Amino acid sequence: MLNGNREHGGESPAAPGPTLCRPALWVPDHVITLDETLALCRRLHGGHEKLRTVLRMIENTGVSKRHIIQPIEDTLRHPGVAVRTNIYEREIHRNLPGVVHDALRLADLSAQDIDAIVFVSCTGFTMPPITTWMINDLGFRNDVRQIPIAQLGCAAGGAAINRAHDFCLAYPDANVLVVACEFCSLCYQPSESDVGTLLSNGLFGDAIAAAVVRGSGGEGMMLRGNASHVVPDTKDWISYEIKETGYHFRLDRRVPGTMSMIAPALRRLADGQGWRASALDFYVIHAGGPRILDDLSRFLDVPADAFRHSRGVLADYGNIASAVVLAALERFFDDGDLVTGARGMLAGFGPGITAEVSLGTWAATETVSADAHQDAQPSLV
Amino acid sequence: MLNGNREHGGESPAAPGPTLCRPALWVPDHVITLDETLALCRRLHGGHEKLRTVLRMIENTGVSKRHIIQPIEDTLRHPGVAVRTNIYEREIHRNLPGVVHDALRLADLSAQDIDAIVFVSCTGFTMPPITTWMINDLGFRNDVRQIPIAQLGCAAGGAAINRAHDFCLAYPDANVLVVACEFCSLCYQPSESDVGTLLSNGLFGDAIAAAVVRGSGGEGMMLRGNASHVVPDTKDWISYEIKETGYHFRLDRRVPGTMSMIAPALRRLADGQGWRASALDFYVIHAGGPRILDDLSRFLDVPADAFRHSRGVLADYGNIASAVVLAALERFFDDGDLVTGARGMLAGFGPGITAEVSLGTWAATETVSADAHQDAQPSLV
Repeated sequence: MLNGNREHGGESPAAPGPTLCRPALWVPDHVITLDETLALCRRLHGGHEKLRTVLRMIENTGVSKRHIIQPIEDTLRHPGVAVRTNIYEREIHRNLPGVVHDALRLADLSAQDIDAIVFVSCTGFTMPPITTWMINDLGFRNDVRQIPIAQLGCAAGGAAINRAHDFCLAYPDANVLVVACEFCSLCYQPSESDVGTLLSNGLFGDAIAAAVVRGSGGEGMMLRGNASHVVPDTKDWISYEIKETGYHFRLDRRVPGTMSMIAPALRRLADGQGWRASALDFYVIHAGGPRILDDLSRFLDVPADAFRHSRGVLADYGNIASAVVLAALERFFDDGDLVTGARGMLAGFGPGITAEVSLGTWAATETVSADAHQDAQPSLV
Repeated sequence: MLNGNREHGGESPAAPGPTLCRPALWVPDHVITLDETLALCRRLHGGHEKLRTVLRMIENTGVSKRHIIQPIEDTLRHPGVAVRTNIYEREIHRNLPGVVHDALRLADLSAQDIDAIVFVSCTGFTMPPITTWMINDLGFRNDVRQIPIAQLGCAAGGAAINRAHDFCLAYPDANVLVVACEFCSLCYQPSESDVGTLLSNGLFGDAIAAAVVRGSGGEGMMLRGNASHVVPDTKDWISYEIKETGYHFRLDRRVPGTMSMIAPALRRLADGQGWRASALDFYVIHAGGPRILDDLSRFLDVPADAFRHSRGVLADYGNIASAVVLAALERFFDDGDLVTGARGMLAGFGPGITAEVSLGTWAATETVSADAHQDAQPSLV
């Protein structure tokens, strides 16, 4: 029951339900290539005893380039938490409106149609949350529910979609805007040089992604169930150490191997839906790193190519934290070859170690008739 | 519809719905009285040009004493953000388990019965969130949904209850644990001496509160609708400035006057339920300060005594941020004089300026028969 499955005539194309619409993605203009990253690592850490290991790990990430909100020379400086927080807000004010505008347009809605905003971001902090600024300055209603989440890291992309799904189950006519805003480059810590940090320095990138979960109507991934899973006793494997200089990212060497612990939970969720996790039509998987994708395809017994869009996002932008899943989903829309009724899984992974997973079926606009739309309103009132 | 109203035979005592059960509250052993606060203010800010104003404001808060997690001499020192974060976690690890245990017991549930945890806290930050530690160490299931919210300040108490309510509307059999954990004394900033800060230094206290929203069954406030309201163009009135030394609380002098802007939203919510905001049986109102309570009772046209439990919490503990509403609600349980069907409002206020409001009716265990409980499952599936 907790999976939020709703049977309205099984998986017929027109079965109504909350639908994750086409996402919008923004990445900054400043680019750093793999070669530049490697050169930088050699220059900054020439005497590091694990330099060769680190360089090999960075080469193996599959990241070709990353986009960052400041030129690299500014990124490498730490001007203090206060200044970084100002930059965080400045870049949001400049760049978030366009992404949100696009996401609304792609869902065929206006800001006034939105009932809740889930804003996830683990790379900066404000109080009040950014949602308050959006209400004041971007035309959202004053009664929009604000759901800001800062502490779920990369898993927050999946969590945001899942909380939006839940909200639409509670209020079937609701529309929820999901925004994942990650400026990982603002968490660069020049004082750190452990292997986990050096790898992270070569892995993470900046992006803002947004998408609407429409309570009814819309084209995209019709959400049929969601789940969360915490892997026992891995709390310290991905974490922030909080210091005067801000968030210091800690990445345990065991993290890349966690998929053996997460795959069973993904399979159980699919089983509960009467699906086989190994035989879905699309997979939108968090691209934490290459090993995570390799392992998961192995443990789920799916061909490596099934995760091609996650690999594509990793190659083009690096690990953009909670924004990865929306960026990968966008590529399935670009493909245009998923047919209505196609079954898929979306999974975010992050600190906890937490997996936030959704199952859904593809829904193309033309097959959701006006009549089906009419049927879509469960009569709660 | 978005209020989540569900009509199952109107407001009959047995009308089913998510119920906010009796909260548990913990406050630390270290106490600072009003006289000690005033003496401290005189000692630390003897030469402050607004000293008399500040002292009068503190005297007028109605705060008799506050409880803080460290002795006052330690509270006044700033050992740095890293050390404060360690203290934040240490005190949570020591003291949260008891509060959570009590909240579960009061709801007649075990940790294994909980489907989601909403953890709100604006006075410390961790990643992963505290919910992950609770899952690992306090016996909660690995599939519990984690909803950590850090950026809604004092309004988060209302927001947490409202998100728990929504979750139970989405999954009618679910049980949601709400935890409000505020160690305001960890945000003391010795370098600040503006009037807003000095007033805050004499106003805020520490506490942990917890309560369960049961999807069905249980005694307490049966939730019938919730809403959020952001007052336009007041984003900077309550905020954190983020610095190397952590969160610096900014309180605009106009904040105490905001109730004229919020009262209409509260009236509209009650109207939508067919109720009159001025004629409810109980009010659980955030005790941000005395002026807020005075003004709101005037604008809602209710007797001052209606907010007695909010004043009681303010007097005994100070403004304990997101924990206030749970602490005030507890006192209605202590009274024991609310009858089943009594109508009430719960309202949290905080940065945004945001109001998070719930409406509900009192439900006593003995009147919710097994049959009514049976009826309590809206048939969505």
